[in-house]
Amino acid sequence: MTRPIAHHPDPELDLVFERSVDVPRELVWQAWTDPEHVKQWFTPAPWSTVECEIDLRPGGIFRTVMRSPEGDEHTNLGCFLEVIEGERLTWTEALEPGFRPSRTGSHIETCGTSTLTAVIQLTSEGNGTKYTALVMHRSKEDREGHEAAGFHDGWGAAFEQLVEVVRRLQTAGA
Amino acid sequence: MTRPIAHHPDPELDLVFERSVDVPRELVWQAWTDPEHVKQWFTPAPWSTVECEIDLRPGGIFRTVMRSPEGDEHTNLGCFLEVIEGERLTWTEALEPGFRPSRTGSHIETCGTSTLTAVIQLTSEGNGTKYTALVMHRSKEDREGHEAAGFHDGWGAAFEQLVEVVRRLQTAGA
Repeated sequence: MTRPIAHHPDPELDLVFERSVDVPRELVWQAWTDPEHVKQWFTPAPWSTVECEIDLRPGGIFRTVMRSPEGDEHTNLGCFLEVIEGERLTWTEALEPGFRPSRTGSHIETCGTSTLTAVIQLTSEGNGTKYTALVMHRSKEDREGHEAAGFHDGWGAAFEQLVEVVRRLQTAGA
Repeated sequence: MTRPIAHHPDPELDLVFERSVDVPRELVWQAWTDPEHVKQWFTPAPWSTVECEIDLRPGGIFRTVMRSPEGDEHTNLGCFLEVIEGERLTWTEALEPGFRPSRTGSHIETCGTSTLTAVIQLTSEGNGTKYTALVMHRSKEDREGHEAAGFHDGWGAAFEQLVEVVRRLQTAGA
């Protein structure tokens, strides 16, 4: 197998979310890749994630259904591109499962972003984890729209929920 | 590493080109993945491929520049998705190198197709090779447009040129 590519954020097109947290990388990976866990944290409350489908390999499905407090549902359909166990998870909404060019295109109507590719990178820091999310857009306008729609707050709130899930996994495993 | 996904053609959205040829799979792979070889066969004459850039790994660049008989040039920019040595090569124009959602979108203006994903599958048949190209489109209209623009003739002519390159590699290696 060839070595994975390096990802280089482009400030004009990309958004980056980065945190350090005192939980182990392996559990963050687990919370990110098990659909039952993902449903608990993926969408900042009061929104919820009511469905999650994951086929954890390149070309495999990554589908989530988010529900608004009013009960409106929105589906995100994409596929995984890089699955590097415990280290890196990359997916895109520009392709459907099986790498098929996306027919739906965007969820611009609900949260101000269009088709994106996201890279979650996990790095060990002592007993903790450095968590970096790189979100790539197809245009400056898409990036600005996503930022204005609350990218940093949204990813921050979801991350807090993710950490709670990990702490419950720690307690359950202790 | 997880097992690769299976590809399932959708007759409404996809085009399939298939040939059996009496040259070894390894040399077909070589002709497909070395930019100097690709330039010799990728574009049916009298068009030519004047540039080719290949970073043979998922997320790596696949860029070609085609030149018309009149000297007009057109660039195709995409990235690889699956690189399974000697067996399968998948790339898309829906993503730029590094998996970034594509900004240019399509080359609909020159050959009637829009953003596509292609899977080249090579299978050994005795001493020969079964060559299957699956080309996925985002809509029925895209598929029909690509077909009407001469998909089968174009891929057929390019394939004949590819086989010529392989026979020269065989002679050189004999």
